[in-house]
Amino acid sequence: MAPSNYSYKYFNVTFPQEHVAHVEINRPEKLNAFVEEMWLNLGQIFNKLSHDPDVRCVVLSGAGDRAFTAGLDVQAASQGSILGASGTKLDVARTATGIRRHIFEFQSCITAIEKCEKPVISILHGYTYGLGLDIASSTDIRLSTTMTLFSVKEVDIGLAADIGTLSRLPKCVGNQSWVKDICLTARQFSSEEALRFGLVSGVFGDKAEALREGFRIAGVVAGKSPVAVQGTKSIVNYSRDHSVEEGLNYTAIWNAAMVQTEDVKAAMLAGLQKDKKKPTFSKL
Amino acid sequence: MAPSNYSYKYFNVTFPQEHVAHVEINRPEKLNAFVEEMWLNLGQIFNKLSHDPDVRCVVLSGAGDRAFTAGLDVQAASQGSILGASGTKLDVARTATGIRRHIFEFQSCITAIEKCEKPVISILHGYTYGLGLDIASSTDIRLSTTMTLFSVKEVDIGLAADIGTLSRLPKCVGNQSWVKDICLTARQFSSEEALRFGLVSGVFGDKAEALREGFRIAGVVAGKSPVAVQGTKSIVNYSRDHSVEEGLNYTAIWNAAMVQTEDVKAAMLAGLQKDKKKPTFSKL
Amino acid sequence: MAPSNYSYKYFNVTFPQEHVAHVEINRPEKLNAFVEEMWLNLGQIFNKLSHDPDVRCVVLSGAGDRAFTAGLDVQAASQGSILGASGTKLDVARTATGIRRHIFEFQSCITAIEKCEKPVISILHGYTYGLGLDIASSTDIRLSTTMTLFSVKEVDIGLAADIGTLSRLPKCVGNQSWVKDICLTARQFSSEEALRFGLVSGVFGDKAEALREGFRIAGVVAGKSPVAVQGTKSIVNYSRDHSVEEGLNYTAIWNAAMVQTEDVKAAMLAGLQKDKKKPTFSKL
Amino acid sequence: MAPSNYSYKYFNVTFPQEHVAHVEINRPEKLNAFVEEMWLNLGQIFNKLSHDPDVRCVVLSGAGDRAFTAGLDVQAASQGSILGASGTKLDVARTATGIRRHIFEFQSCITAIEKCEKPVISILHGYTYGLGLDIASSTDIRLSTTMTLFSVKEVDIGLAADIGTLSRLPKCVGNQSWVKDICLTARQFSSEEALRFGLVSGVFGDKAEALREGFRIAGVVAGKSPVAVQGTKSIVNYSRDHSVEEGLNYTAIWNAAMVQTEDVKAAMLAGLQKDKKKPTFSKL
Amino acid sequence: MAPSNYSYKYFNVTFPQEHVAHVEINRPEKLNAFVEEMWLNLGQIFNKLSHDPDVRCVVLSGAGDRAFTAGLDVQAASQGSILGASGTKLDVARTATGIRRHIFEFQSCITAIEKCEKPVISILHGYTYGLGLDIASSTDIRLSTTMTLFSVKEVDIGLAADIGTLSRLPKCVGNQSWVKDICLTARQFSSEEALRFGLVSGVFGDKAEALREGFRIAGVVAGKSPVAVQGTKSIVNYSRDHSVEEGLNYTAIWNAAMVQTEDVKAAMLAGLQKDKKKPTFSKL
Amino acid sequence: MAPSNYSYKYFNVTFPQEHVAHVEINRPEKLNAFVEEMWLNLGQIFNKLSHDPDVRCVVLSGAGDRAFTAGLDVQAASQGSILGASGTKLDVARTATGIRRHIFEFQSCITAIEKCEKPVISILHGYTYGLGLDIASSTDIRLSTTMTLFSVKEVDIGLAADIGTLSRLPKCVGNQSWVKDICLTARQFSSEEALRFGLVSGVFGDKAEALREGFRIAGVVAGKSPVAVQGTKSIVNYSRDHSVEEGLNYTAIWNAAMVQTEDVKAAMLAGLQKDKKKPTFSKL
Repeated sequence: MAPSNYSYKYFNVTFPQEHVAHVEINRPEKLNAFVEEMWLNLGQIFNKLSHDPDVRCVVLSGAGDRAFTAGLDVQAASQGSILGASGTKLDVARTATGIRRHIFEFQSCITAIEKCEKPVISILHGYTYGLGLDIASSTDIRLSTTMTLFSVKEVDIGLAADIGTLSRLPKCVGNQSWVKDICLTARQFSSEEALRFGLVSGVFGDKAEALREGFRIAGVVAGKSPVAVQGTKSIVNYSRDHSVEEGLNYTAIWNAAMVQTEDVKAAMLAGLQKDKKKPTFSKL
Repeated sequence: MAPSNYSYKYFNVTFPQEHVAHVEINRPEKLNAFVEEMWLNLGQIFNKLSHDPDVRCVVLSGAGDRAFTAGLDVQAASQGSILGASGTKLDVARTATGIRRHIFEFQSCITAIEKCEKPVISILHGYTYGLGLDIASSTDIRLSTTMTLFSVKEVDIGLAADIGTLSRLPKCVGNQSWVKDICLTARQFSSEEALRFGLVSGVFGDKAEALREGFRIAGVVAGKSPVAVQGTKSIVNYSRDHSVEEGLNYTAIWNAAMVQTEDVKAAMLAGLQKDKKKPTFSKL
Repeated sequence: MAPSNYSYKYFNVTFPQEHVAHVEINRPEKLNAFVEEMWLNLGQIFNKLSHDPDVRCVVLSGAGDRAFTAGLDVQAASQGSILGASGTKLDVARTATGIRRHIFEFQSCITAIEKCEKPVISILHGYTYGLGLDIASSTDIRLSTTMTLFSVKEVDIGLAADIGTLSRLPKCVGNQSWVKDICLTARQFSSEEALRFGLVSGVFGDKAEALREGFRIAGVVAGKSPVAVQGTKSIVNYSRDHSVEEGLNYTAIWNAAMVQTEDVKAAMLAGLQKDKKKPTFSKL
Repeated sequence: MAPSNYSYKYFNVTFPQEHVAHVEINRPEKLNAFVEEMWLNLGQIFNKLSHDPDVRCVVLSGAGDRAFTAGLDVQAASQGSILGASGTKLDVARTATGIRRHIFEFQSCITAIEKCEKPVISILHGYTYGLGLDIASSTDIRLSTTMTLFSVKEVDIGLAADIGTLSRLPKCVGNQSWVKDICLTARQFSSEEALRFGLVSGVFGDKAEALREGFRIAGVVAGKSPVAVQGTKSIVNYSRDHSVEEGLNYTAIWNAAMVQTEDVKAAMLAGLQKDKKKPTFSKL
Repeated sequence: MAPSNYSYKYFNVTFPQEHVAHVEINRPEKLNAFVEEMWLNLGQIFNKLSHDPDVRCVVLSGAGDRAFTAGLDVQAASQGSILGASGTKLDVARTATGIRRHIFEFQSCITAIEKCEKPVISILHGYTYGLGLDIASSTDIRLSTTMTLFSVKEVDIGLAADIGTLSRLPKCVGNQSWVKDICLTARQFSSEEALRFGLVSGVFGDKAEALREGFRIAGVVAGKSPVAVQGTKSIVNYSRDHSVEEGLNYTAIWNAAMVQTEDVKAAMLAGLQKDKKKPTFSKL
Repeated sequence: MAPSNYSYKYFNVTFPQEHVAHVEINRPEKLNAFVEEMWLNLGQIFNKLSHDPDVRCVVLSGAGDRAFTAGLDVQAASQGSILGASGTKLDVARTATGIRRHIFEFQSCITAIEKCEKPVISILHGYTYGLGLDIASSTDIRLSTTMTLFSVKEVDIGLAADIGTLSRLPKCVGNQSWVKDICLTARQFSSEEALRFGLVSGVFGDKAEALREGFRIAGVVAGKSPVAVQGTKSIVNYSRDHSVEEGLNYTAIWNAAMVQTEDVKAAMLAGLQKDKKKPTFSKL
């Protein structure tokens, strides 16, 4: 599949390293704030990357110096059909049905990141607000910078966040008192807090440095057997949402096929050899 | 609903800030240790606060300098019907039935804190032992002081803790080795450990300072849309106990009604305006 | 049950303290790497300890200076039936069935540690790789040393880890970004990281010191009512995999019988007495 | 507990047989249609019966010749706060919150039948519409007459039934096509259909005959060990909502206490004896 | 949305009654056997109907006299990529990944029927084999004819059925011994059996008669409030897969919005009026 | 594996047809009532059959004319450690622990039938009481005779049945009112009822006829691809205990390996050929 298939107004999709894709949110003049077209495109991009045999790992970042994304473009949303003040009063149940369908569609665009079979590393710099956290909590590895400013912003516009933050955050981090604090107050917090309480796993001096580390990790991941890597993502995600016993069962069924891969032999051979030549693996 | 409805022997219930209730455990001469009347009352209080339209956030603390609560009043319990030595030997199954009913009733009193639709902030100072942790782990935000002494005390009286600590603690914090350590040994631990391993999200110099911070946070929460705040508590609690997919579904159904609130328009308008006048929201 | 029942080629099982068993993986010349006989024996040992009335707590460690265990003996495995290159090409479905059965059997040996009714404390020193983490994540309390080297090694041999690490690790620690990082890259990490991100709850200067602390904790646990201790392990494990409400229900059913134990009276009496004589409890 | 405790305007609660209570819905002039006071009282009655040591089985029926119950008193409801047309337009979210709380309270009154520790046998005669099916599906054994007329009536008033029918019916019967048919069309159906598709387990000539059979079964149940009977209800209900494996686990924990009852010895002795004297059991 | 949007090679989509759509599988010369294009189109059709405001109920049937559908077009499938004999031997894990993706896509096309917000009535006549049962078990109401021949055909081609029959059938019917019998033997069974064991809820003389009854039911459903009807389908489907308690909770959250509909007033007014004029409801 | 490995005092294990095993409970002089040795052996037998490559289907029946099995040998049990009256009064908690372990072991012996990878057909004739129903509900297909007498007998000895009946029965049949009736009253019921309410799928004139039909079905099953048959059992069992969505997911992961089997080609080829030669399949 050629890169030309990945042409979008608000996203730069490039392939700067072998087997590594780079998705850049590209609306820097608006702090990468999202309008509807953007989340629809984001979903399409990750659905494609999921099955793209040339891709083994993805780095997701925001263009410009100021923001990963400031979240929903509230001004645009306030004029739209969902959050906007409609003149005509529709029946409450019918309006609710429209909203429910809209939320499901919006959620599924962000969930596409989690469902993408290839690991996704997010580089969170500058403003990472609202939808920015919905997106970040759907990625596999989160890195930030000393200047990142986080906020679960939604209560500030009268909303319980509904695109995933409230469902994923409690499972990402290890201090539920802190989760409630940041979700209920919508207060800003720093990378230092994000690291200490478990939201990110690395903090770097600036965006460039964080990107370098992101691509370094992506390179390591892309160098491993894609059968092993994609199985690992699938099993860890499944286990998060199931009992240990269910997780073990899923793992056994999954690996009954996957252990038959040629990659095991290639990897084991490479590991046992003296010269440690890097093994190569077929596309997946 | 007037404050006069909240008159209890062992609890002071006051309304020191707009939309903020303060529940104080008030048996300081016994380190705020609990007798049966107390947990029954605690359940009633939080059931009432849950639907009280004047209340948007609750602060829970212990009276006196020495303890949030030292837990169950063991001396009283040892003379009671459950843990006490009954002279007559009842049938094991009938005794078990009585105990089961008693535990369910006791649990439901503490669970009332978790089910309270309004967020609850606990201020943990001095002894926070046994039942103190059952209670604390049912609150949304936990703050403590440099002098707090914690202990999951139950194994010291021959019991696996049964009022919630063992079910909630593993989901509150992010180090299961530590959870097992403190639950199996009943050892004392400090606020420093509690913060490091994820049980509390803030530690303050003394009780007064922790209370100030608790009320500051409560004020912030009470200033937001109650529709957004109560939805956030409900969705985070639901998501803790369900898969991400179930959480997303619940969120969409919930918000299908809630997004139709006038609060969104009020909050968005206030946010978009230059002068940042604080929006006001109707009771809930 | 006499210690003579615990005689195994690759394991030393001793009883150095009252009510405390010590299981030592004993293949130091191979960095305690596991061959099939070893995991089968490990499962048998913990199944026995689970019901051994003389045992109330178990310490698990590795012999020699260099490793808790370096994991699977890959060289042996590469000649075995599962990962080895079989000359004859079996039908894929039939091979998958064989692998599935094999994984289930392997998993059940390691799960025996988690199912062991008595708490298990693991002392992780030196190399703790691959299967070493499957084993460690099945224990209740994890202690390590400043020199421990951890790695979720499996992707390096082309495999998604299938004996439990990927199912248990996300529930042991409180930073999912870090979990994905170490599972997807197979990189080495230190005790400092393991402690900071929540995998271990204590780090000690060297193996001897960690063992001393392990036995000290084991002594404390073994001194408590075994009814309380085993109930605590059972309820915490159950609660990890269920909703809070299910956890509370399980606790009430469990304790309906267990609160009737004589241990409660013995423990409460000892606690209320001035001289704090240590209570004694019957075997379990 | 004396029968005098069971005095309600719309319910006759009597104790016509040893250990058997009879709850009769008593508003025959309105086809036993429910107003709010009635479901609140119904909940209270079953909460009391649940722990009443003199009661081992309950028969639930409707007074008069014409109806078990025609369901919600729609005329009354249409003037009430929930379904009624309120003049003032409240905020949608606040109205939704009020409705949600109301539904939860209503549901919990009907669920009290299911949670009642003693088995409940319902005698369904004449009109059994709407709420009548919510109630019937919460009972343990359902008997009807050749003249019973059933209808899941709610869609006819613009509602998806919300007091339990839609959640319990699919688990009561064994033909989901039929469940959807009757729920989506609100059509009337007969006892013959109800029996054939699995909603009732017996159909009798008229109400008197069905009542006689109900009391006969109640007598049999009340003659068994209450430990065994109440355990059976609890385990079957639990198992309906859990996997077989969870059900088995619950059963083992439950019976660990319950098998210790004296009733087993009494029942076994009676069973082994020649003269088959009926065993007697203590209250529960 | 105009009918012209529903133009497909192998499906006739018409709107023969107000608010009722008719989807006809149209490949009678091949017994309506499915090729890939067909299930992709089937998914698209039901995704569209789900949100089509003019549609309130759907009837699904097969063209011609001989079959609802004989299932997968095995001859075509045997030349395709999945079941076909590929000359080149791919890596097992990579082949498994391709198959898994393919099955997920195939499943989602059939699940579109279940997820369609509007009720779907299937008319099963003649051969209803293999995929025919996957499809039928995804519909809400199943009607058949005296001449229908059913078979869970998949084991006859060496497959465990994977498009839904094995997951849905055990929940559709009430005799698991029979489910295992027909799934393990692939034997033919008649409408008489299908009705007796709970797979269909009505059997008619021939296809024309069954279609008439299907459209009659569809007309009844389409005449009710679409808010009530769609809520009923959603809640019954949700409850099938959740505990009663979860089902009740979902219902309350759902109805908190839906009870606010104008339809309740319209329906209640119509019901209370003497002349029983049929109420009209807005689109949904 | 040779039949000689299947030699047990109370069971005849034979191989009367190709790929079909016959397990006969053989204690006819005691109505095939079970003593502890028997259920331990039953578990061992089905664990072995599960992996025996010569076996593709199992028929389970009782020796003699009078009973499949009358259940637990109560006289023996009354002298044993669990139900028997022990002279010394042990601590309640310690007794409960012993009972719990015993129940788990007993359950796992019966669950071995359900976990056996090969389908099991039970022939229920004469007395099928108590444990007989625990066993029957663990089999895949249940056939009985016009003379079979069923009873969920346990409440008659003061027990809630704990070896599986109460967990499996509600999922086997489609009339929960009937399930409660037979479980709460311990009354006898006939094959006619068992068929009508969904417990069995066929009733035959006598044991010989039922056995013939059992072996006929077993022959059909054994003639199909064992990959397809065992996958079907596994997926139907999994789906019974999971949501439809989880079931679909499990199916896709399972079949990702299994569809690669040579059996598909063999079966499809045989199906497409004119002469319908029966395909042959390798062992599994």
